[in-house]
Amino acid sequence: MTTIENGVRNGVDTATLFATIDAVKAAPAAAQFQFRASNRWISGTHSQSTIHGYFGVGEERTHDHVFAYDVDHPTVLVGSDLGPAPVEYLLHALAGCLTAGLANIAAARGIELTEVTSTVEGDIDLNGILGLDPEVRNGYQAIRVSFDVKGDASAEELLKLVEQSRKRSAVFDVLTNGVPVSIEVNAA
Amino acid sequence: MTTIENGVRNGVDTATLFATIDAVKAAPAAAQFQFRASNRWISGTHSQSTIHGYFGVGEERTHDHVFAYDVDHPTVLVGSDLGPAPVEYLLHALAGCLTAGLANIAAARGIELTEVTSTVEGDIDLNGILGLDPEVRNGYQAIRVSFDVKGDASAEELLKLVEQSRKRSAVFDVLTNGVPVSIEVNAA
Repeated sequence: MTTIENGVRNGVDTATLFATIDAVKAAPAAAQFQFRASNRWISGTHSQSTIHGYFGVGEERTHDHVFAYDVDHPTVLVGSDLGPAPVEYLLHALAGCLTAGLANIAAARGIELTEVTSTVEGDIDLNGILGLDPEVRNGYQAIRVSFDVKGDASAEELLKLVEQSRKRSAVFDVLTNGVPVSIEVNAA
Repeated sequence: MTTIENGVRNGVDTATLFATIDAVKAAPAAAQFQFRASNRWISGTHSQSTIHGYFGVGEERTHDHVFAYDVDHPTVLVGSDLGPAPVEYLLHALAGCLTAGLANIAAARGIELTEVTSTVEGDIDLNGILGLDPEVRNGYQAIRVSFDVKGDASAEELLKLVEQSRKRSAVFDVLTNGVPVSIEVNAA
């Protein structure tokens, strides 16, 4: 049996979720968002980003907290291991995006989830970034996601949640299809 | 004047950097890495990933610390804002990767950096992920990076550091060119 209190299922406020979708349907410009990260180099391969402000629903906004994250290379790659490698954050982003979508979709479909865990693996051949083999790309050659999903629905219905989340995942789209990235430099 | 103590410049141990490149040149299989993130859903759009183990230079390894990161949607997107959005971590990863490369390349070229900061912006139209407009993609439509780089070299030389870092960036490659992503689900 699915228990819903005040329209909240899986921690998702479904009434607000549907109201938000309706609001965007009525005013599509509200859906224009800009996200940002600011990074400061510390030493060697170690830097730190802060994530706070963003634009959305027609105005400048801030997260409730200033989020700050260290990034580094492991010692075996001549770093100080003071944070995950940049490419590891990509795997985290993918897991977080697919999982958030899954919870939303389950809530919308009246499915109560009891457990969702995932592991994401990425294979990379560093002969690319080290410039040792021009045939090897710099980035991951493949990424694999493995989900364990439990809830009050059939295995088939749970599988379909992941499939629908994949179809609507921003990070999955970026990682599989790519995005134009421009870089400008102010050097002094 | 560039000061190097024990072959360390910009916090980069250049002797070890060159030795590592030589070691991989001699044994290319050492460059096969696999990175991983494990994620656990908490509630709603909130989940947490841990990053610890990875494979590289021929064996299983672990970071010095278990890194754990929360990810969520902001409240305006029906989340609890207990962490950055998944797509924000992508921007952080890009800044961290380009910056680490820049510091390594500067060290290798004998350039001492005094300051490197960057901001990364990503434009996204949520009509895509909300399923309201089939013409709109789910992910970012564009990402822009802006670097401020200061060091003991000409503006032209500093610009070239960023350019070379871009050419050898794993995250830049992934974000611009995409990667095959497979998903498997164990549902119960």
